Amino acid sequence: MRIDIITVLPELLKSPFEASILKRSIEKGLVEVHFHNLRDFTTGNYRQVDDYQFGGGAGMVLMIEPIDKCIAQLKSEREYDEVIYMTPDGDTLDQGMANQLSLKKNIIILCGHYKGVDQRVRDMFITREISIGDYVLSGGELGAAVLCDAIIRLIPGVLNDETSALTDTFQDNLLAPPVYTRPASYQGSEVPQILLSGDFPKIEKWREEQAFEKTKTKRPDLLK
Amino acid sequence: MRIDIITVLPELLKSPFEASILKRSIEKGLVEVHFHNLRDFTTGNYRQVDDYQFGGGAGMVLMIEPIDKCIAQLKSEREYDEVIYMTPDGDTLDQGMANQLSLKKNIIILCGHYKGVDQRVRDMFITREISIGDYVLSGGELGAAVLCDAIIRLIPGVLNDETSALTDTFQDNLLAPPVYTRPASYQGSEVPQILLSGDFPKIEKWREEQAFEKTKTKRPDLLK
Repeated sequence: MRIDIITVLPELLKSPFEASILKRSIEKGLVEVHFHNLRDFTTGNYRQVDDYQFGGGAGMVLMIEPIDKCIAQLKSEREYDEVIYMTPDGDTLDQGMANQLSLKKNIIILCGHYKGVDQRVRDMFITREISIGDYVLSGGELGAAVLCDAIIRLIPGVLNDETSALTDTFQDNLLAPPVYTRPASYQGSEVPQILLSGDFPKIEKWREEQAFEKTKTKRPDLLK
Repeated sequence: MRIDIITVLPELLKSPFEASILKRSIEKGLVEVHFHNLRDFTTGNYRQVDDYQFGGGAGMVLMIEPIDKCIAQLKSEREYDEVIYMTPDGDTLDQGMANQLSLKKNIIILCGHYKGVDQRVRDMFITREISIGDYVLSGGELGAAVLCDAIIRLIPGVLNDETSALTDTFQDNLLAPPVYTRPASYQGSEVPQILLSGDFPKIEKWREEQAFEKTKTKRPDLLK
């Protein structure tokens, strides 16, 4: 899989891709992630990427021309399955969408910043608008990092133990059951006896019940 | 405001706090963000922070003792309003929650990793569990960065123009209207005439209508 991220702040995105699972998946050659600085696609001396809104109002808007140029250059090099724009008014990311996107070959992710991008960018170039949740961030960069993490960890071979992602919260529309590790007793607080029993069919059943009860209490909407 | 982030991967979190709005708000002294490496609160030679799950199963679990020590040390230094655990089965972050948290003085954010933390940590120390959305990430670090960004940009003085955050998507339960910037005409695609009219009351009305129509089409749930 290849992911091209277009941003005005590539430096903001660096560290999440240089640590942990994202780093290892890139080193293993399971995914390629390329950052493109919008300022490299400007023409003037000031490398201007944003301008005031037409009609007045607070906040700058990313201009269409540098974005057009960057996307056009990428598209001249290979075919893309999706050109995604990260925006709080996009379709809300969920695990199903992450599963689906993890099967794509090449995707572009455009990060908004300030008040977002010129609407014509969205009308002309974007195939999919994605939000990571109902809140506003100072830019699309963290959203892009979140989207990449959610997708990349699902690519076969990325997680050491392939069963690990399958037992995650949401994969079966249930919240994950509680987990415990050593010590069995900590300041008077004990691990549930059943987990120490060695009776794996019973443990499995307990976990299923816990997952179902937790989901019913905290997120009944997931059970519909 | 002071935010203490407890993590096994502080290096993953670096760059988002060293760029853009988060960096400026820290430099301006409007917020303090401190990272605490869980490994600094271990006792053995191996600086072990995680262990296998009781009852078997894929994925490691963060142990209670180093987390307890770290939280205890922080609490001995000051009072905290919240001890937050980032987890996909927590309460889903939205703009209202971000507004509310932006008024707090001191908060701790604990990042899970691998399969999460020992359940007893959640039972004993955590005052609030927050999810940034219905998807699974490789750790709580990106969630913590998202939460910090959502909160910090709301602190007065962080955004250059204080009206900017108030016109964001979600602040009035409406998606933001489309925005446009120069040039007025790009490859035959034109900015709506109304925005070039200079008639600001009319522009304001147009924006309200656009915001309402967009919300009705894309996110009718927000209008309930």
